[in-house]
Amino acid sequence: MEKTIAVLPGDGIGKEVTESALKVLQAIGRRYNHRYHVNTGLIGGDAIDQKGHPLPQDTIDLCENSDAILLGAVGGLKWDQNPSHLRPEKGLLAIRKHFDLFANLRPVKAIPGIISASPLKEDVVKSVDMMIVRELTGGLYFGEPKRKTDNGAVDTLVYSREEIERIVEKAFELARLRRGKVTSVDKANVLESSKLWREVVEQKKLKYPDVELDHLLVDAAAMKLITNPSMFDVVVTENLFGDILSDEASVITGSLGMLPSASIRADGFGLYEPVHGSAPDIAGKGLANPAAAILSVAMMLKYSFGMETEASSIEEAVFSVYEDGYCTSDMKQDGYRVLSTSEFTEKVIEELERE
Amino acid sequence: MEKTIAVLPGDGIGKEVTESALKVLQAIGRRYNHRYHVNTGLIGGDAIDQKGHPLPQDTIDLCENSDAILLGAVGGLKWDQNPSHLRPEKGLLAIRKHFDLFANLRPVKAIPGIISASPLKEDVVKSVDMMIVRELTGGLYFGEPKRKTDNGAVDTLVYSREEIERIVEKAFELARLRRGKVTSVDKANVLESSKLWREVVEQKKLKYPDVELDHLLVDAAAMKLITNPSMFDVVVTENLFGDILSDEASVITGSLGMLPSASIRADGFGLYEPVHGSAPDIAGKGLANPAAAILSVAMMLKYSFGMETEASSIEEAVFSVYEDGYCTSDMKQDGYRVLSTSEFTEKVIEELERE
Ligand SMILES: CC(C)[C@H](C(=O)O)[C@@H](O)C(=O)O
Ligand SMILES: CC(C)[C@H](C(=O)O)[C@@H](O)C(=O)O
Repeated sequence: MEKTIAVLPGDGIGKEVTESALKVLQAIGRRYNHRYHVNTGLIGGDAIDQKGHPLPQDTIDLCENSDAILLGAVGGLKWDQNPSHLRPEKGLLAIRKHFDLFANLRPVKAIPGIISASPLKEDVVKSVDMMIVRELTGGLYFGEPKRKTDNGAVDTLVYSREEIERIVEKAFELARLRRGKVTSVDKANVLESSKLWREVVEQKKLKYPDVELDHLLVDAAAMKLITNPSMFDVVVTENLFGDILSDEASVITGSLGMLPSASIRADGFGLYEPVHGSAPDIAGKGLANPAAAILSVAMMLKYSFGMETEASSIEEAVFSVYEDGYCTSDMKQDGYRVLSTSEFTEKVIEELERE
Repeated sequence: MEKTIAVLPGDGIGKEVTESALKVLQAIGRRYNHRYHVNTGLIGGDAIDQKGHPLPQDTIDLCENSDAILLGAVGGLKWDQNPSHLRPEKGLLAIRKHFDLFANLRPVKAIPGIISASPLKEDVVKSVDMMIVRELTGGLYFGEPKRKTDNGAVDTLVYSREEIERIVEKAFELARLRRGKVTSVDKANVLESSKLWREVVEQKKLKYPDVELDHLLVDAAAMKLITNPSMFDVVVTENLFGDILSDEASVITGSLGMLPSASIRADGFGLYEPVHGSAPDIAGKGLANPAAAILSVAMMLKYSFGMETEASSIEEAVFSVYEDGYCTSDMKQDGYRVLSTSEFTEKVIEELERE
């Protein structure tokens, strides 16, 4: 197959980790006989500096002409005092909205060996394997009115029934491919939008009699993620709850540096990026963990290109490197050898070529 | 001194734990020569059953004529399918709003011995000592428009500058009495209300040059509560973020069953209640942990009545009972003897009388 990928390295370690991810992608191309064309564009702080906009029109055009997007990370101290339309994360919000990337998928899985890096007890996290499905283009992020005066401010949490339906269906579909359980998170005891959310979930459930469903209030969910994280299979929730809970979930297994994410559209087009940020403090030093970006490529192959085997190859290669006792500086553990970004990447490629 | 207290036991274990708390209150009265008058009223499910309203007018009158309110817990499966105006938690929301109880204070502190019940590693939680200050009468909970149709729903996150100012001041004042640090949590990279929030916090900071301040985005805060909870002293945030983060924080030290809370008004009038819920599954069995309700009484003495010594006596008594190796069934640990609700209460009173 032939695919064109828009690569937006962004800021900080975004550059190094996408470079690693692309090396792995090309290794997959060689091994499975695919051609991946790569076009690089600007986003975030870099785009502000060079083009005066966090998501320049050139970048949008580049993405329009691609089959998927790979993103590094955006942001950095340098732009933190900018007016809000000139902030790096505006690029991220704008690209999600422009391409209607409504479904944000965030897998969190305990990796044997690595879980000793977790702040939680091994027993609590050892069988964690969940997928958080966050609605990404609605709710408080985009609702109008949204304004501030000297004396007050307002944001609006608005959802249409269709917006809820499509993300909830996505969650049920994903659950069928996993352990068959959906936990829907809302605040139905307070919010009208959550009441509608719960209603839609109940109604969609009728189409999925084989999937188990439960509802959890967002405050209870924030507790259960800590006290009993292995109870979750697929978690589905609205945009802001998803922002909070997926970040909370990302630290429980001690493997933040290796968590990928996908933000996809109804037709399978998607944007793939590591969960971690741009980490300007370690940028350019060869210290960054490329695993999250590499695993984001695996998600791209699986969710946008239907290349399941290729995706599994990458995942297995990454996990093998850990099993062989290698890690990067963010996951230092007893008995592990710490590798640089490029050394780690080479090990992954070696594994891929050996498989 | 003479004080009148409105006691609203509510549902489930609310009844047993307020009974315990009142016994301790009377012991304090004997010891320090105060007279505490107690008037009992209905709230929540019980009030719905007996009066057809989760917060009957009688109860409001009773509270109006009191110096403070002690609440047990509300809710239970029995009322879960009720229409929303006949749900127990509506009583809680209504009483907060009616009495303008804008400042919700939730201390979370690691208790030596007890932290082995934590899902987190001892090292991570052993020096946790924070106070979450949650705005309680604004934001998405009460903003208009707030409505649902078949095709969509809307909630409104609205804050006036004054609403933000008073809670932020409260946080700075509390920090002065503690370790002198405030962490303000918002989502200023996305929400207009958070931009105003941050602006107000910065401006108030000028009045408190002695207090250290930092800002954290809500998603980052959800992570830090797990990876580095001891970095927090006073955490201040808006209503819904506070709901989520305070519940998250409540499980990190393994001592949910002993966490109290205060919801106070500008003049010091307040409502005091355990953080835990009504736990209908264990109600009436003598299994409930009364510590949270007892420590809520301590907060009442401190924050509403200015009885600092009396409050400390209660806290010390409760902690001594744990130190002596007793606990309730929710905190079972190696080497601890499990007591019933009333046995635990008796131990606390014995300690109080011995001090
Ligand atoms: C940078 C920010 C706007 C963004 C969000 O809140 O969605 C980020 O936290 C994320 O989760 O991707
Ligand atoms: C019962 C519910 C409405 C309430 C809230 O969301 O405020 C509860 O979760 C709390 O934190 O006191």
